[in-house]
Amino acid sequence: MTRHEITDETLDRLNAWWRAANYLSVGQIYLLDNPLLREPLRRDHIKPRLLGHWGTTSGLNLIYAHLNRVIRERSLSTIYIAGPGHGGPGMVANAYLDGTYSEVYSGIDRSTDGLRKLFRQFSFPGGIPSHVAPETPGSIHEGGELGYSLSHAYGAAFDNPDLLVAAVVGDGEAETGPLATSWHSNKFLDPRSDGVVLPILHLNGYKIANPTVLARIPEGELLDLMRGYGHTPYLVSGGFDGEDPVEVHRRFASTLDDVLDHIAQIKADAVAGTLADRPAWPMIILRTPKGWTCPAVIDGHPAEDNWRSHQVPLADARDTEEHTRLLESWLRSYRPEELFDETGAAVEFVTALAPDGELRMSANPSANGGLLRRELSLPDFRDYAESVPSPGGSASEATRVLGRWLRDVIVRNPQNFRIFGPDETASNRLDAVFEVTDKQWNAETWPIDSDNHLARAGRVMEMLSEHQCQGWLEGYLLTGRHGVFNSYEAFIHIVDSMFNQHAKWLSSSRRIPWRRPIASLNYLLSSHVWRQDHNGLSHQDPGFIDLVMNKKADIVRVYLPFDANTLLSTYDHCLRSVDYVNVVVAGKQPAANWLTMEEAIEHCTRGLGILEWAGTERAGEEPDVVLAAAGDVPTLEMLAAASILRERIPSLRVRVVNVVDLMRLQSEGEHPHGLGDREYDAIFTTDRPVVFAYHGYPWLIHRLTYRRTGHENLHVRGYIEEGTTTTPFDMVMLNDLDRYHLVMDVIDRVPGLGATEANLRQDMQDARLRAREYTREHGEDIPEVAEWAWSGTSAGRFDDTGGDNV
Amino acid sequence: MTRHEITDETLDRLNAWWRAANYLSVGQIYLLDNPLLREPLRRDHIKPRLLGHWGTTSGLNLIYAHLNRVIRERSLSTIYIAGPGHGGPGMVANAYLDGTYSEVYSGIDRSTDGLRKLFRQFSFPGGIPSHVAPETPGSIHEGGELGYSLSHAYGAAFDNPDLLVAAVVGDGEAETGPLATSWHSNKFLDPRSDGVVLPILHLNGYKIANPTVLARIPEGELLDLMRGYGHTPYLVSGGFDGEDPVEVHRRFASTLDDVLDHIAQIKADAVAGTLADRPAWPMIILRTPKGWTCPAVIDGHPAEDNWRSHQVPLADARDTEEHTRLLESWLRSYRPEELFDETGAAVEFVTALAPDGELRMSANPSANGGLLRRELSLPDFRDYAESVPSPGGSASEATRVLGRWLRDVIVRNPQNFRIFGPDETASNRLDAVFEVTDKQWNAETWPIDSDNHLARAGRVMEMLSEHQCQGWLEGYLLTGRHGVFNSYEAFIHIVDSMFNQHAKWLSSSRRIPWRRPIASLNYLLSSHVWRQDHNGLSHQDPGFIDLVMNKKADIVRVYLPFDANTLLSTYDHCLRSVDYVNVVVAGKQPAANWLTMEEAIEHCTRGLGILEWAGTERAGEEPDVVLAAAGDVPTLEMLAAASILRERIPSLRVRVVNVVDLMRLQSEGEHPHGLGDREYDAIFTTDRPVVFAYHGYPWLIHRLTYRRTGHENLHVRGYIEEGTTTTPFDMVMLNDLDRYHLVMDVIDRVPGLGATEANLRQDMQDARLRAREYTREHGEDIPEVAEWAWSGTSAGRFDDTGGDNV
Repeated sequence: MTRHEITDETLDRLNAWWRAANYLSVGQIYLLDNPLLREPLRRDHIKPRLLGHWGTTSGLNLIYAHLNRVIRERSLSTIYIAGPGHGGPGMVANAYLDGTYSEVYSGIDRSTDGLRKLFRQFSFPGGIPSHVAPETPGSIHEGGELGYSLSHAYGAAFDNPDLLVAAVVGDGEAETGPLATSWHSNKFLDPRSDGVVLPILHLNGYKIANPTVLARIPEGELLDLMRGYGHTPYLVSGGFDGEDPVEVHRRFASTLDDVLDHIAQIKADAVAGTLADRPAWPMIILRTPKGWTCPAVIDGHPAEDNWRSHQVPLADARDTEEHTRLLESWLRSYRPEELFDETGAAVEFVTALAPDGELRMSANPSANGGLLRRELSLPDFRDYAESVPSPGGSASEATRVLGRWLRDVIVRNPQNFRIFGPDETASNRLDAVFEVTDKQWNAETWPIDSDNHLARAGRVMEMLSEHQCQGWLEGYLLTGRHGVFNSYEAFIHIVDSMFNQHAKWLSSSRRIPWRRPIASLNYLLSSHVWRQDHNGLSHQDPGFIDLVMNKKADIVRVYLPFDANTLLSTYDHCLRSVDYVNVVVAGKQPAANWLTMEEAIEHCTRGLGILEWAGTERAGEEPDVVLAAAGDVPTLEMLAAASILRERIPSLRVRVVNVVDLMRLQSEGEHPHGLGDREYDAIFTTDRPVVFAYHGYPWLIHRLTYRRTGHENLHVRGYIEEGTTTTPFDMVMLNDLDRYHLVMDVIDRVPGLGATEANLRQDMQDARLRAREYTREHGEDIPEVAEWAWSGTSAGRFDDTGGDNV
Repeated sequence: MTRHEITDETLDRLNAWWRAANYLSVGQIYLLDNPLLREPLRRDHIKPRLLGHWGTTSGLNLIYAHLNRVIRERSLSTIYIAGPGHGGPGMVANAYLDGTYSEVYSGIDRSTDGLRKLFRQFSFPGGIPSHVAPETPGSIHEGGELGYSLSHAYGAAFDNPDLLVAAVVGDGEAETGPLATSWHSNKFLDPRSDGVVLPILHLNGYKIANPTVLARIPEGELLDLMRGYGHTPYLVSGGFDGEDPVEVHRRFASTLDDVLDHIAQIKADAVAGTLADRPAWPMIILRTPKGWTCPAVIDGHPAEDNWRSHQVPLADARDTEEHTRLLESWLRSYRPEELFDETGAAVEFVTALAPDGELRMSANPSANGGLLRRELSLPDFRDYAESVPSPGGSASEATRVLGRWLRDVIVRNPQNFRIFGPDETASNRLDAVFEVTDKQWNAETWPIDSDNHLARAGRVMEMLSEHQCQGWLEGYLLTGRHGVFNSYEAFIHIVDSMFNQHAKWLSSSRRIPWRRPIASLNYLLSSHVWRQDHNGLSHQDPGFIDLVMNKKADIVRVYLPFDANTLLSTYDHCLRSVDYVNVVVAGKQPAANWLTMEEAIEHCTRGLGILEWAGTERAGEEPDVVLAAAGDVPTLEMLAAASILRERIPSLRVRVVNVVDLMRLQSEGEHPHGLGDREYDAIFTTDRPVVFAYHGYPWLIHRLTYRRTGHENLHVRGYIEEGTTTTPFDMVMLNDLDRYHLVMDVIDRVPGLGATEANLRQDMQDARLRAREYTREHGEDIPEVAEWAWSGTSAGRFDDTGGDNV
């Protein structure tokens, strides 16, 4: 048999699989019992609450059946991404038919009882979600929010040269912004070292309650659009007006063969080196009726080929005899008696369409990426340490230092680590990576690009779309690889909702035994709020941390390393971790280094600590005040405040604390990183005022420390939405986070100081005024701030007493 | 002169304006003084910090100049949206040249001194932002985050049939998701009753550090893409390899005439009713070099026509003599001596290109929408009240009730009010609006759509893209109209970053005297976390409220009406407000009504209040415990808990409080809605335990009440990221927000009850177990919960005592 002869028997098999998958899908939505209709359908066989989505499902099933055939014939390692993932019953049905489902859920076996359980558990309390979810074998793509199927698909395909990723876009997903730009991912795919994405635009006409845009533009426009996106569109349409599905199978099978031949040719040319230009990869436009094979008319309204079949077409299946009968005839239309034997197992004529073992799409290891994940080989970050002869005794651009380490991470891990970012990798000072790799780019390159590190293959992925960066990285991680997403801090909010979905995926997948841990999703947020003085208010937003903190404690981590060495130590930790989302906010501007690498490791291991050299406490006594800080700029201001206090109120016993790991502030019971109360109290005291300079919105620190004994004494400064285009120090002044204001806060908080230090308070107000006036006059920061450097003798007053204060 | 004869003098004028605008742009970026180069440029004439973006600016200026010409010739009311709004100096320069700038900022007049101030203030502390911002006359579009220019443009065009909106897309914006789908907005524009959007894709080749995708695909693909988006592309390219700008002016002017003739023809056909199909509106692709007219080479690297000119090409202009000289020759290349007279005013040959009065794009009232805003004519919401014979004595779907009122808002305001939503207006039960209006839809309609309320013009805008809904609404509001965005609660996070930007715009614009207040941005979030039991975890996220709360108190409002009448009262308030973002979360499922309209008005006016009928306190005594709730489902659970306590511990004095306006919980000093401490204490007490059932993440309530006396006694239940596809009551149980758990919380919190009420505690645990088991068994909620109804006699125990407890 040559590939393009689709025999009638093959069509029969395709149709049988499709009927079986459709039957199992409808069964999941509606049936509690009587799974094979061995007796007439009664109302008590029907679920009391009918939840699920039928409209997209028969299309998803059709595609699955046909992919099975070509996978068998061509031994193509393939995963299936269901963009309209609300078609959960379909994906579960196919995983059940190919045997994977029973392998991972042994209670749901191939028997009548197994079928009963399969049906019952769907959208049922204690069962499985109504959408494609981590619980669904073969999926790396939650079916909640639409828009990310192609991004996930490309992420899965990168560095997987032998993988085919079939990505179905449907039910209006193509109208979303992230999907609309994700077509351009083909300009970032290397035909030789990456796999293939086959987009299948499933136009079934409707979304929830409306037609979809792409279903209602002239065919010429649609084809232009796909060509404009750089694809070769293949169009298959069928199933309308009662057309025999077998005819649709025939056309779709034949088209799929053409498409795969086309793909094979491109891959062969790429491997042979004869591929001159970016190929116009094939994509398929599949037009079938929405809800295809459900009753044509329900209650006098069209159901099949109409938006009304989007969810549960027979909403009253349990409540009215008419609907019960209609449901029964719908179910029987698939002729289950031909598809399942007397034991309830699907007959061999159906199951033989499934590929073997890991070629089954539901069992492909790439869809359970933890199986494939190999730990990164990490260079020793200590070798990249900045020399810090004394606190503040050297300066670095922290992210530039990190970039050198990341460069060597790339060298050691040439095929399973990538850096993603929206055109900001160099701006974020990670450009050392370009010594060893390039930005992957398969749009046109011109001679002038020769020094711009653009290449067919490279470890850095830059597209001006945070959505693509996030989606690509998610797909890359979920298929077992590692990566970093670097972005401006403010604009990471663009992917808030994607973060939510990924965090929820991790929350769920951690509870599923057969899902193996995947690498953490690592953010590196630079160009942060305090150094967006040049771009102004629109670029100033530290709120992503707050969003992250609303997710479950066991999957989120937030770090605010305050110099180069703490950043190195932090990131080494992040790249070793699994199943987390790590948010790291770090500076890119030249700034003082505070800790030697040895100190940084100890500090980061604890997650927070007393900067003994910066304080003025005496051994064995409680300090009068604790100055705490989290973040590089807040710590700088706090250290400057400590310096002023040291000079002006030498008798004041000041403790200075820095927090790198925000989660340490929480109680042990709330977060695995939470500090024990005794340890917390030993650092922050139980009754002394704590003035806390925080990187972001101040409320978060209150939230984290809410249960701590001394929290009533905590006074937090942070970003309060004041900003514009101005100077760095003006930014902290606008938000009352500057050193002078922090000193005033101390005066106001330490009992007695208000009376004795009125002069100092006035001096601080004068200093603020002077700084502001200078800035308004000269357009830059006043020298006493711009040139300020820490001048405390290394261990200062504290070591003089010879004690240990913790 | 017929339109298409572009005389040499016209070309000279266009070029003169362009040179002047370019000169003023470069001057803003670099110069502190010597604005007209009347003396040789010295380093101290140059700003110490060079901030701004040159790369896009000369292109923006070119377009502005040419639009001026056609506006004059055709009297076209036009606004200009600069997608690459980081080209702030350009937009300021043009507003200065056409005179608007000096009108709104009288200190910046048309003199040498005015020029000096104009230059100095740019990106200077105390001056103006580096990007297009509210401070920029003529702008409705902040130049921070890229992606929303076309959405804003369409929003501005809706219901403005005589307005032309020129929208420039550039510097990689086209790669963002929101922009990529916003081209499809043309399927939602009515050629007759709406205005015209003219997209100008400005391909200058590069974004920050990379080529852009659309600049590096074959021209055929690019044209296909634009045709696929439904446009007729017009291509102009020029300025490369030293081409004389006058030749580019000639081609661009001629193309612009063709484009406007084409538009005029479409509009005429639309008005005449002879437009059969959706027109393929013109759009322009303009290719010019990035940074056009800056030095070709700087420090041996290409600058013009290269990504290196994106920001400030001569970074060392003040630091090296070579750069200073290069800057001077760059500035002099525009021949300022020909453009400005001895007083510093632009010469008439330049300024005469500007249209008159409000035809100037910088002075168009649509770009200062508050000038055009008319208050809505609102039907009396009391007329839509649900009858509530006793608390819980009737039931409604709250949003359905609101829909009836919105229907009549539409009737009374047929041209300045729209409802936006991603395909969910009916799902959110607002479908009464379809009695009087339609969904605006200009893609194909088919006979089967006859009952689906699709029409060429209508008040409801539905596209499956939250980005478009938000962007359209923002554009609509910023040009002086009113609207509502209804969405699923979880997926409103998709527009988090857009919300941030709009909130920042409002924060800034409120401080600018000449900006008039615009209508508030009103969210209606339904299908909320507690009733997404059917869709599962991915659809459960109440965190948008937390995001909103990080913005400045003077612009954000959050309401949680807990029944139909409180929702009506709340929304009436929202539609009357200006310059706010109002977030309203409301239920759409059938649920009990608690307050009569009279009570609802009083309750909403206060923002919170004691539900006297639900409590068991005695006059003149403090209650033993306060049960508080915010949100419809939490309030229901709290009332059920109160009912259990009433029956089981009749001696317990319980107060029940509901909060509609979350901001009332904050202190007066923190939010204008904040309750005074005395009033707060009178409701919540200073020392009694408060058990608070909250709609969202529990921390927010702690945050809001942090400064209140009794906050240590506050115990909050809310959403803790537990959920799946299950039943509604299982959802609250999973998150410990259920009535039984609330009763247990009371037992644990009220001193003494732990010992005396061990039986009740056990009963509650048993009830939870029973409910869970029943649900797992039957797939629906246990009847004792599902059928539970409030049974307290109307004013109950409380009124029996005849007193007043506040």
